Amino acid sequence: MMYENPVDIERRSFEIIASELRLRRERLSHPGEQRGPLEESILMRVIHTTADFEFDENLLFTHNAAEIGRALLREGAGIITDTRMAMAGINKQFLEKYGGTVQCFIGDADVMCAAQEEGTTRAGAAMDKAARLSAEFKNRLIFAVGNAPTALLRIHALIQQEQLNPGLVVAVPVGFVNVVESKELFMDMKIPAVIARGRKGGSAVAAAIINAMLYYGATTC
Amino acid sequence: MMYENPVDIERRSFEIIASELRLRRERLSHPGEQRGPLEESILMRVIHTTADFEFDENLLFTHNAAEIGRALLREGAGIITDTRMAMAGINKQFLEKYGGTVQCFIGDADVMCAAQEEGTTRAGAAMDKAARLSAEFKNRLIFAVGNAPTALLRIHALIQQEQLNPGLVVAVPVGFVNVVESKELFMDMKIPAVIARGRKGGSAVAAAIINAMLYYGATTC
Repeated sequence: MMYENPVDIERRSFEIIASELRLRRERLSHPGEQRGPLEESILMRVIHTTADFEFDENLLFTHNAAEIGRALLREGAGIITDTRMAMAGINKQFLEKYGGTVQCFIGDADVMCAAQEEGTTRAGAAMDKAARLSAEFKNRLIFAVGNAPTALLRIHALIQQEQLNPGLVVAVPVGFVNVVESKELFMDMKIPAVIARGRKGGSAVAAAIINAMLYYGATTC
Repeated sequence: MMYENPVDIERRSFEIIASELRLRRERLSHPGEQRGPLEESILMRVIHTTADFEFDENLLFTHNAAEIGRALLREGAGIITDTRMAMAGINKQFLEKYGGTVQCFIGDADVMCAAQEEGTTRAGAAMDKAARLSAEFKNRLIFAVGNAPTALLRIHALIQQEQLNPGLVVAVPVGFVNVVESKELFMDMKIPAVIARGRKGGSAVAAAIINAMLYYGATTC
């Protein structure tokens, strides 16, 4: 059967995901992480975005990160992404309903200039810029990093140097170099983090995590 | 070792991918598809974007689609994406070097209106809009579809009705409903297509395929 209505397609997709997730957990005899309904809903949206059930093992929430992220978004948090793709994937209509914003500095002239001068990545320099602007957001800044491990490394360094105190870090870069290590840094920090352990993740995953937090318990989606 | 230089990171990433791909093919005793160097380069960029080696089995090129896509892009093709994420992921600097453009109609007021009136998806209505504009691109239009199977279904119908004759279709939606079927439709068409068989794909995969075609043989990347 070919569904044409987008609401039907999404509903049916989530039924399939829930059913296969149940079977997969039975087959692998693992109860998954001890996730609450919000965390489970975030996981399901990540699987919806990737068609990859491995996130059931890989997706990790520290310090009640899901609830904290959802609350921050409800209060109109500012989101910083490392890529324009992640920014494009976040539902602006929902975000703006709560007074939230999303920004990505990767293509800014001053960031490109700083990266070149310091011989570092644009992603790193973009996080420096976010840190300089973080005062105006108090501690309500959310970092959504789906691509650049160097962005995570810089966020980590800025936190250690007490130049940054984000409300939440979504640490889900994808890739082969520095990626696993950069994400593991956030497993033992005091900052709440959503982490995709291992190599997998991506800009679409970062956006899906933010969107799931925005949608959860909302009247429409 | 932590690499900081973005060029080093990318080079090292592709070394790891090439090495693991070789081992994986030996282990699975499959020679992969009979891919040429351009097709192999596209596959590797898709793996770079997803950290998912399953694309070695799933990525399919019909009618010399890789070479045709690369040639179209060199001639300044127009690209239509189904999502703003895919549009955001395409390297505009490279695209514009060859006089190419990328457009996404999904958020246009007339598209949203048409979708509501016809009880269809915005992705489908966006493809109708692209078809109306396709005359100005002659047969040089590239469709890059990473999200919406309904976009692919509509492109297929428009081709069947001779209202559209694209130069290339990148058919890589991700998901659980209509996705596999919508992609399989393009396996037996006369239009060159890059297809990710199965459920996996995504906006980042669509962008990676276009970018790999843009980068191949170019002086910088």
